[in-house]
Amino acid sequence: MEKITPKSKNLSAWYNDVILKAQLADYGQVRGTMVIRPYGFAIWENIKKELNLRIENEGVKNAYFPLLAPYSNFQKEKEHIEGFSPELAIVTHGGGKELAEKLVIRPTSEAIIYPLYAKWIHSYRDLPLKINQWVNIVRWEKRTYLFLRTMEFLWQEGHNVFSSEDECQKDTIRMLNVYKKFAEDALALPVFSGPKTEFEKFAGSKTTYAVEAVMPDGKALQAGTSHNLSDKFSKAFDIKYQNKEGKEVYAYQNSWGVSTRIMGGAIMAHGDDKGLVLPPSIAPIKVVVVPIKAEEKFIKYARKVQKVLTDCGISSELDLRDTVTVGFKFNEWELKGVPLRMEIGEKEMRDSAVTIVPRISEETSYQKKIAVSSINREVPPMLEKIQSLLYKRAVELKDSLTFSISSYEEFKDQMKKRKVFARVFWAGSTEDEVRIKEKTKCTIRVLENSKVFGRCFYTGRETNTVAYFAQSY
Amino acid sequence: MEKITPKSKNLSAWYNDVILKAQLADYGQVRGTMVIRPYGFAIWENIKKELNLRIENEGVKNAYFPLLAPYSNFQKEKEHIEGFSPELAIVTHGGGKELAEKLVIRPTSEAIIYPLYAKWIHSYRDLPLKINQWVNIVRWEKRTYLFLRTMEFLWQEGHNVFSSEDECQKDTIRMLNVYKKFAEDALALPVFSGPKTEFEKFAGSKTTYAVEAVMPDGKALQAGTSHNLSDKFSKAFDIKYQNKEGKEVYAYQNSWGVSTRIMGGAIMAHGDDKGLVLPPSIAPIKVVVVPIKAEEKFIKYARKVQKVLTDCGISSELDLRDTVTVGFKFNEWELKGVPLRMEIGEKEMRDSAVTIVPRISEETSYQKKIAVSSINREVPPMLEKIQSLLYKRAVELKDSLTFSISSYEEFKDQMKKRKVFARVFWAGSTEDEVRIKEKTKCTIRVLENSKVFGRCFYTGRETNTVAYFAQSY
Repeated sequence: MEKITPKSKNLSAWYNDVILKAQLADYGQVRGTMVIRPYGFAIWENIKKELNLRIENEGVKNAYFPLLAPYSNFQKEKEHIEGFSPELAIVTHGGGKELAEKLVIRPTSEAIIYPLYAKWIHSYRDLPLKINQWVNIVRWEKRTYLFLRTMEFLWQEGHNVFSSEDECQKDTIRMLNVYKKFAEDALALPVFSGPKTEFEKFAGSKTTYAVEAVMPDGKALQAGTSHNLSDKFSKAFDIKYQNKEGKEVYAYQNSWGVSTRIMGGAIMAHGDDKGLVLPPSIAPIKVVVVPIKAEEKFIKYARKVQKVLTDCGISSELDLRDTVTVGFKFNEWELKGVPLRMEIGEKEMRDSAVTIVPRISEETSYQKKIAVSSINREVPPMLEKIQSLLYKRAVELKDSLTFSISSYEEFKDQMKKRKVFARVFWAGSTEDEVRIKEKTKCTIRVLENSKVFGRCFYTGRETNTVAYFAQSY
Repeated sequence: MEKITPKSKNLSAWYNDVILKAQLADYGQVRGTMVIRPYGFAIWENIKKELNLRIENEGVKNAYFPLLAPYSNFQKEKEHIEGFSPELAIVTHGGGKELAEKLVIRPTSEAIIYPLYAKWIHSYRDLPLKINQWVNIVRWEKRTYLFLRTMEFLWQEGHNVFSSEDECQKDTIRMLNVYKKFAEDALALPVFSGPKTEFEKFAGSKTTYAVEAVMPDGKALQAGTSHNLSDKFSKAFDIKYQNKEGKEVYAYQNSWGVSTRIMGGAIMAHGDDKGLVLPPSIAPIKVVVVPIKAEEKFIKYARKVQKVLTDCGISSELDLRDTVTVGFKFNEWELKGVPLRMEIGEKEMRDSAVTIVPRISEETSYQKKIAVSSINREVPPMLEKIQSLLYKRAVELKDSLTFSISSYEEFKDQMKKRKVFARVFWAGSTEDEVRIKEKTKCTIRVLENSKVFGRCFYTGRETNTVAYFAQSY
């Protein structure tokens, strides 16, 4: 097996190596596109299943809206078309003919879903309406950064409608917190969360909220967004309902999405020089069983062990290949980030036991021998331990890469030395923000209210608003 | 609630009424497109889950390949481009610029997946390779027939690769039988299955096999196809591997797919004048619980009943709306095809029981009162009974609409009177087939080998090949 670039040496080379060699993904033929291979897709399916459950628990139902929309739909909300127009893929021919009106492949589905909402919503009794869809999205992009930036990606987009602005705002925050908890619990990714600035918001929203993860190079990964659209889209798409008093009024809406890029974030945050390290909660294979020798008795014993794992509801793989060495197998399963490896040899058989080697542990080299009969008691806590260790390490990383900074000079110095999340007091304008971006490539990832006041690092004005600046993926 | 057209009076008006009024789907804004609404999508998710399990049991893994491909990819297999070219949607502009090479939205993914297979497959050790994807497909279409014919549809497409032609052929039939069993077990849809003629085969395949269901109007619904591609695509896309003898040889391939149209088939086959009748195996709500009065004690009792259902793993809905009458509720849940209704009133409460009314039964009006404590024992068999009754009725329908016909005159007479599946001996040519299609709109749905010989109904030649002719959706 070819070596992968060490993570500490070159993060992005390591990242591409790991994804390609662990067969998570590959490049599509059209520039900017990506193929998600079976092992990668199994991880995505686990992410989807877990997040979908959390979304359903909020009373949201899944549906499916068309891929294509008339171009004119996108022009209905002015800021929306301005924001998305450079990213659109346009269909001009269909069925062998040039089309009278060109069609847009969805870059997001507000302009596709809301005409139907206008048709379906009549009365306050129809609200709240909460619908989500898991679909593919196209935003024009020429350079592929596997999972993190691709022309086509998979995501879920939720579109909720409410009768009051207050309810809408509360729900926007509720969905943001669903994302925050999901990132932390399932992906072991601690995040910053809060509103974006006017400059960074979603085209057409009133306010955009985001969860942002800290990558090992100090850069920010936007892992999910929740937009309060207020009545901006309901006015553009004529989504009105009759309220309890019999009056026709506009509805309030939000939309919120998480895409395959969150998977890129989890890969980048947790992996090490040996390859992937998958949080057990999303690992397609939680345990790999490897007999040390390819003898009949070992194979039989290994099958028995796998049966016990299956009975405990623990997904596993039994590696019986006779075309590669045991050492090769160990390396490969480490590369693939499988949380636990079970080794079976003479000694293990004699003791009706297995030797377990976790993919990561607090000690440098750790292994444990347990009785087969105790798999159901011993294995789940070991998986939980890996999950919490990953989270602990990610929190340490996040903390170690977040700096309180009080002046623009200090900020520029820091960013020249090493990229970080800069926590600063902020009272600047959009123009200030743009200027800082031009100079330093850093943008405000999220805002926060501070309990105390301080001086803006850029304008010197007093404020209790805190901004997290970082360079983003 | 508005009335729906009776099924016996006008099948296609009934079909559209049911789908729109039960809120399964709606029309998208672009001609030919469809929106799958939450209730319809929940049915599709159940179909998908059940079929996906059966596909995984065949050792197939899910993945995701890009939506867009260079136009030139589709030209590599000559028959393939000829067949699909009139149905393509073409992207000519992206990111605000005209593209150097136009892109095709996938009408099926052979031409997108196989260049990657060529890259991934090197040795006999890489085979068999079995990959499936659940994705959206676009084939140009101007008239929408909800679920049955839409410009965009959802499907799964499996793409398997083998080292021998024999293995490939066996697997092609195996996947056909997965579809047959799925249609019969899960959707209660009996089907004809077998090879298609050269004229009806998939563009580029060696042989196409299909499962075909009989609709109540005697028309055929193609519910799934399995194509033996032999080495036609592997030669076009250069999918070669080194065999055990160290020689470079071409691989053998098949592909197979089932789409959202199978859901249309199940709707059309099973519904009645009151609306949908969902096979319990795919019904999102298996039991609806309706308190006869909106009093606190009934509601409390109904919640207890729902808790028992949930504990038994039976999905249910508790209808507590106070804005509509009980009669309205009954009609609506019948329209929505929910298999069982539980009614709760004074008498039921007194006896710690519920009254169950099945959506269909062998008697005209049937209901049963059971103790709440026996829900876990009594309800599952009632659901199974509905499932088997639906299948029995569908088999009767299929049999009653299949006629053995021995001459072309008889065939034309029959098709003028009433559309049916005509079982005929067949030794005609492709030209004969085309001529019959032009005259009668009927095509050969599948072929079959008969144990006995007979005379071709068209040419008079002796043969043991039987063809099923029908008009198709």
